[in-house]
Amino acid sequence: MGKFKVGLVQMAVTADKGANLRAAAEGVADCAARGAGIVALPEMFCCPYQASLFPAYAEGRGGRVWTELSAMARRHGVTLVGGSMPELGDGGGAADGGAKVYNTCFTFGRDGGEIGRHRKAHLFDVDIAGGQRFFESETLTAGDAVTVVGTEHGKAGVAICYDIRFPEVFRAMTERGAVMAFVPAAFNMTTGPAHWEVTFRARALDNQMFVFGCAPARDLGGPYVSYGNSIVASPWGAVAARLDEGPGTLVCEVDLGEVEAVRSQLPLLKAMRRDVYRSAEADGDQAN
Amino acid sequence: MGKFKVGLVQMAVTADKGANLRAAAEGVADCAARGAGIVALPEMFCCPYQASLFPAYAEGRGGRVWTELSAMARRHGVTLVGGSMPELGDGGGAADGGAKVYNTCFTFGRDGGEIGRHRKAHLFDVDIAGGQRFFESETLTAGDAVTVVGTEHGKAGVAICYDIRFPEVFRAMTERGAVMAFVPAAFNMTTGPAHWEVTFRARALDNQMFVFGCAPARDLGGPYVSYGNSIVASPWGAVAARLDEGPGTLVCEVDLGEVEAVRSQLPLLKAMRRDVYRSAEADGDQAN
Repeated sequence: MGKFKVGLVQMAVTADKGANLRAAAEGVADCAARGAGIVALPEMFCCPYQASLFPAYAEGRGGRVWTELSAMARRHGVTLVGGSMPELGDGGGAADGGAKVYNTCFTFGRDGGEIGRHRKAHLFDVDIAGGQRFFESETLTAGDAVTVVGTEHGKAGVAICYDIRFPEVFRAMTERGAVMAFVPAAFNMTTGPAHWEVTFRARALDNQMFVFGCAPARDLGGPYVSYGNSIVASPWGAVAARLDEGPGTLVCEVDLGEVEAVRSQLPLLKAMRRDVYRSAEADGDQAN
Repeated sequence: MGKFKVGLVQMAVTADKGANLRAAAEGVADCAARGAGIVALPEMFCCPYQASLFPAYAEGRGGRVWTELSAMARRHGVTLVGGSMPELGDGGGAADGGAKVYNTCFTFGRDGGEIGRHRKAHLFDVDIAGGQRFFESETLTAGDAVTVVGTEHGKAGVAICYDIRFPEVFRAMTERGAVMAFVPAAFNMTTGPAHWEVTFRARALDNQMFVFGCAPARDLGGPYVSYGNSIVASPWGAVAARLDEGPGTLVCEVDLGEVEAVRSQLPLLKAMRRDVYRSAEADGDQAN
């Protein structure tokens, strides 16, 4: 497995969809100019992270956002993990309340063709005492799949923000051959300092893969304050690269040989005991 | 759920079983005197951590080590998570090579009665370039269960060292009602600095439980150099308490109300999507 560069675009997100698309295009161009073969955008890069706004900003496959992302990938010849956007699902009549809206990441190949779609499977519904309150489920519908995308550099899992809280998602990616995972995400000022780094490191370490987190830049005046800190976690569980809170791009060389080396020296995936985890339903040893 | 104190005994381990048992007894007495209701010992607290020595040090249930641990629990009126020991399994004739040896943690209630037995389910077989090499499977047999023990303070998972590398183990404990987990462990000077803290924090955070790691003190002249750093990770994923590398005891107040609070405010366990993890066998969304 080879070496290549990954670019993360930690852009400021505003209420102006057109301005957001221009900022994304500039970030992708910058990463491509610095040699990135895969570029990722943040969660909800084209829409303020506010549940009440998602339906109004939602578009379907083939809409303006999808089309411009496809064009960015093709123009620069990069694989583009298109952050996420409010996706307007197919049709739906009055009986079921109309079309559903998802928090969706479209991924595009170097030729601009769509090569993957992930709909956030775990909606962010939390109410932390003295901290963050948010209910995505007020306007969004959850996806129903773990997503692994075939890229020219290897298989890549795609998850969105809260999905990373669930180790099962990353294990499922790994069992389907992923050697890296991209996570457009927007942790906040409650969960970010407490949980961002440890969670990215743990998913990378447990599955011995690269995990990339791409967040919006912090906007202290916005409706939801992103923690920023876009990050690259290595298969050894280290922080290989990281931004701070401001707007910027990160370009990091990735050597997938590290995945092979770590999996060979510390063979966690071969040491798994699926028979044992299943036995948890029974009483286990204490019955003896 | 209530408050109580947990004691961890980070003792030096020597080749002298009797001296190790005395050191354990002193540590348990110290923790009990400071109010601990549950006390834990390190992995292989009564035997050097060297695969070739495990068979010679092995004893069965009711042997010297088991009997002395039971007596310590009863004498001090504590629940005792008895670290681990090489356990001589039942019988076995010449046909199957004689009795098997396990890396086993016996847990005792306040009356000295055995309330749980965990046999390490993931044997530590690694060979890290420029770092640690170890093959437990040369002399040990793996256990075949996830273990949850009922204590008077609540249900506690028990795992041993390498078992902590597998998120499935801690999820299975949680699904069986565990609100805390004890992990006698001996990370080394390769894996300790890189992986000890992040792994304990991640298991605690993902399952929103307390996780206690109890290690032998570091002995730079021994056959296997323990990282030490016995640790308490909180349900919020923070390091609540931690020792350094030397011998010592740690007594930490634990409030299981924190488990309830975190699980209520950030309801990860309710948000799990078992249907989605199972669907990983299929192609998922990218087929659409």
